[in-house]
Amino acid sequence: MQLSNKIYSFRIQPQDVDFQYHATMAAMTNILLTTAGYNADDNGFGIRDLNNIDCSWVLLRLAVEMYCFPKQYEKIQVETWVEEVGRASTTRNFLIRNEQDEMIGKASSNWAMININTRRAQDMISLNGIHKHATGVPISMEKPIKLGLVEGNPVDVFKVKYSDIDINGHTNSMRYVEWISDCFSLDVYRQKQIKRFEINYVNEILFDEEISIFVNETEKNDFRFEIRKEGKTACRARMVLTEAS
Amino acid sequence: MQLSNKIYSFRIQPQDVDFQYHATMAAMTNILLTTAGYNADDNGFGIRDLNNIDCSWVLLRLAVEMYCFPKQYEKIQVETWVEEVGRASTTRNFLIRNEQDEMIGKASSNWAMININTRRAQDMISLNGIHKHATGVPISMEKPIKLGLVEGNPVDVFKVKYSDIDINGHTNSMRYVEWISDCFSLDVYRQKQIKRFEINYVNEILFDEEISIFVNETEKNDFRFEIRKEGKTACRARMVLTEAS
Repeated sequence: MQLSNKIYSFRIQPQDVDFQYHATMAAMTNILLTTAGYNADDNGFGIRDLNNIDCSWVLLRLAVEMYCFPKQYEKIQVETWVEEVGRASTTRNFLIRNEQDEMIGKASSNWAMININTRRAQDMISLNGIHKHATGVPISMEKPIKLGLVEGNPVDVFKVKYSDIDINGHTNSMRYVEWISDCFSLDVYRQKQIKRFEINYVNEILFDEEISIFVNETEKNDFRFEIRKEGKTACRARMVLTEAS
Repeated sequence: MQLSNKIYSFRIQPQDVDFQYHATMAAMTNILLTTAGYNADDNGFGIRDLNNIDCSWVLLRLAVEMYCFPKQYEKIQVETWVEEVGRASTTRNFLIRNEQDEMIGKASSNWAMININTRRAQDMISLNGIHKHATGVPISMEKPIKLGLVEGNPVDVFKVKYSDIDINGHTNSMRYVEWISDCFSLDVYRQKQIKRFEINYVNEILFDEEISIFVNETEKNDFRFEIRKEGKTACRARMVLTEAS
């Protein structure tokens, strides 16, 4: 069933690229979340639709595999579909293609519905009509998994500022990815490329909270991250690097 | 002469807005710089045209006056024209209108041409054909002025990271505006609005340099900023606030 399968086009903008003219992982994440938003709107279950019933979507987990990062001004197409709608979470998948229609990336995400007043998860069984968008179509990649604790000394400590805060009053999801990406020097980006990125969002981060970032290379080129706010886990992430081609 | 007067449309995206659903000053600056880039390309004197002769544009000064900040998903139109082309710098002006065609902002900018190898200013007299784009049309606002030194203790000190660096290997212009905007708490943004923003770009900021930020309220609601890198002035800025309507 192709009902909920849709393709959205994006052009990589100057603000999306790094010093090597490639879209950053943060920019790719932002494009995926924008795609999710567009498709949820098209399906009639966007943030604004959910807001009408005092609910909202929260991203629980995301895994992204990139074979090639698009360059500045390149046009890309993101195909997305809902794989399944459970009671506690829903899975949305993505395929990313370049202008030559070559597949350059894949992603899979899990979302929960929360009540915006209590901030507690809601059972999706009550969402009339959403289940018909569950296509059952999987994606051929390892799903985002639950990541473990990262210990050691923080590599960075700072406070959350105005520019980090989005319309929900929380640090926006893209900022987490920037903070994680910022753990590597330019030299690492010159020599290596991010092959897989995974993130678990655990707790919302608020204005003026103190952030500590922890990193651990568990195997060669397999990095685990943890962002803590006031000592509490806010998110965990993983980046698998490969030698740049 | 309307030859070089052109209007460009933008839609305020989720990543452009702050916790109050309004475009940030950093996002507005980015839109203005993008507009400048589009129009310079249309005139045949874009960055890529200049790169062909080993040159580039650098922004020296920018002043922005906002009467009303556009909201998320709002469409705005930015009209831009070159006022004059001198030997050392060129002036470009902007008018910003909302969907109801009401003027919501104005801006004026000064640019120099540099040699990308020596990083030194070049005489624009050699730029054949650029002078015909100088319309001589001024804008009814105070031009960006040279701002003075700001002393005292830094309000923030941090290192420049991967996400701050653009394709030129320097901190991108929008990031400076974010760092300045981040000197205010959410409470200030709740109670006040930025009426005028001015920035002087003095020195480029590189990866891993240590940044210190200085602020001084010279008169009520008139804030002066200085960003220093390794003790040297990188930029000076000014924000004039007004009570939010």
